[in-house]
Amino acid sequence: MKNHSVFCVSDHTGVTVEAVAKSVLAQFPELEFSLIALPFIDSLEKAQVAAARIAATPGALVFSTLTDPALRAALRDSRASVFDVFDLIAPAVEHALGQAATPSGGRTHGMANNYELRIDAVNFSLALDDGLQPQRLDQADLILVGVSRVGKTPSALYLALQYGLRVANYPLTPDDLEQESLPAVLLANLPRLRALTLAPERLAAIRQARYPDSRYASLQQCRDELAAAERLFARHALPVLDTTRMSVEEIAARLRNPPTALFR
Amino acid sequence: MKNHSVFCVSDHTGVTVEAVAKSVLAQFPELEFSLIALPFIDSLEKAQVAAARIAATPGALVFSTLTDPALRAALRDSRASVFDVFDLIAPAVEHALGQAATPSGGRTHGMANNYELRIDAVNFSLALDDGLQPQRLDQADLILVGVSRVGKTPSALYLALQYGLRVANYPLTPDDLEQESLPAVLLANLPRLRALTLAPERLAAIRQARYPDSRYASLQQCRDELAAAERLFARHALPVLDTTRMSVEEIAARLRNPPTALFR
Repeated sequence: MKNHSVFCVSDHTGVTVEAVAKSVLAQFPELEFSLIALPFIDSLEKAQVAAARIAATPGALVFSTLTDPALRAALRDSRASVFDVFDLIAPAVEHALGQAATPSGGRTHGMANNYELRIDAVNFSLALDDGLQPQRLDQADLILVGVSRVGKTPSALYLALQYGLRVANYPLTPDDLEQESLPAVLLANLPRLRALTLAPERLAAIRQARYPDSRYASLQQCRDELAAAERLFARHALPVLDTTRMSVEEIAARLRNPPTALFR
Repeated sequence: MKNHSVFCVSDHTGVTVEAVAKSVLAQFPELEFSLIALPFIDSLEKAQVAAARIAATPGALVFSTLTDPALRAALRDSRASVFDVFDLIAPAVEHALGQAATPSGGRTHGMANNYELRIDAVNFSLALDDGLQPQRLDQADLILVGVSRVGKTPSALYLALQYGLRVANYPLTPDDLEQESLPAVLLANLPRLRALTLAPERLAAIRQARYPDSRYASLQQCRDELAAAERLFARHALPVLDTTRMSVEEIAARLRNPPTALFR
């Protein structure tokens, strides 16, 4: 099968252009693509170097987010097919707004983009990881609860880094699971609780990788813990997210939104 | 000033469409926009509910990544200006590839997207946060070094979550800074070291927020520590990234790439 080289060229980090390229190319499932990231192409000289590299790659495709039209023109000198997000989308937006666009590089991820808020959120989420400092749970935007290794920490950190949310997480220990109700410190913060669960088989696989052949990682133990946890979640009518088939992005996007139809 | 409501509609997490909307709208600096995220619009019924909400919002703009043409048509019934990434970009790609696109929702962020690799990377980065487990530094993809509060931990976690890189971080203590060379455990892993630095004023502000009026947070102390650290970085010719004006995305994108022209 022919493999297409796809260059993702940006005058900034390239996060946006890589996401667009992957989304669009996913619609061509019979083809294979190799992505090559060329971020921080923010001068004519760098654009010319990039264009030369692209020109030397037969059949290359180019996705780009270059705000400066002169840099886009330099890329087009490569003779490859160039799909620039601004070229393709901005004219329609200009038409709708009745106003011309002003080239301006990389402003969306600038310092203004809540840098300090997000770093504070990461520090908060680390400080309240794994049940630490329960007396501060009332300062959290969200509190993730669930059994050990269900994915609470990565989800909390992604929400903090991506959205600036202060997300604590609290593990339900076997002791907690034997009780009639959730720990009092959680009940005091009920509206902000979000429960995570997983298929027992997946939880067992995750625990196996860490503690092979332990009772902790056995399928029976995982089943028992998850069932006990779900009883507690149901008792307090917590919103529960089953993350078995979800990426970190999807978990975070669902947790970030109000717990309505998104949850089962 | 008129404030435009901008709906970001996606059949999946909405990460891509929000990034595109922010990039394009940054080119209209005189206008103000309020973004409203509508993720997981993955059925005709949900698209119709979204369209009704959009129709009730005068002057709304809509950015979307909806792979199903029927859902895009439902959005257009709102009579708002709709900019769908696939509508606007896919035809040019189809033309270049000589092949028709196949609608397929949200595949790019699916489970296949290295979920386990990324979670393992997060666990690694947490296990080797702040100089923990130095005997495992040889397992790291990258090792971030710098003085306290220079931004090592959030950068390491972002690289792990976004790119699946195993990133340790090692703080240079005042004791380390008094030595002639970097600690031996770091020198044993020299090719993977990346140094972070900051403007002293910013470091002092960050430390002040945590320990107000301490010697640790004083501008003089920050200046001294950063100068001593930079001497050590220069001595071992480490690539140094000054993150003073950078977002987490930019720090990560620069660290992820080879340390050539990207660094000073």
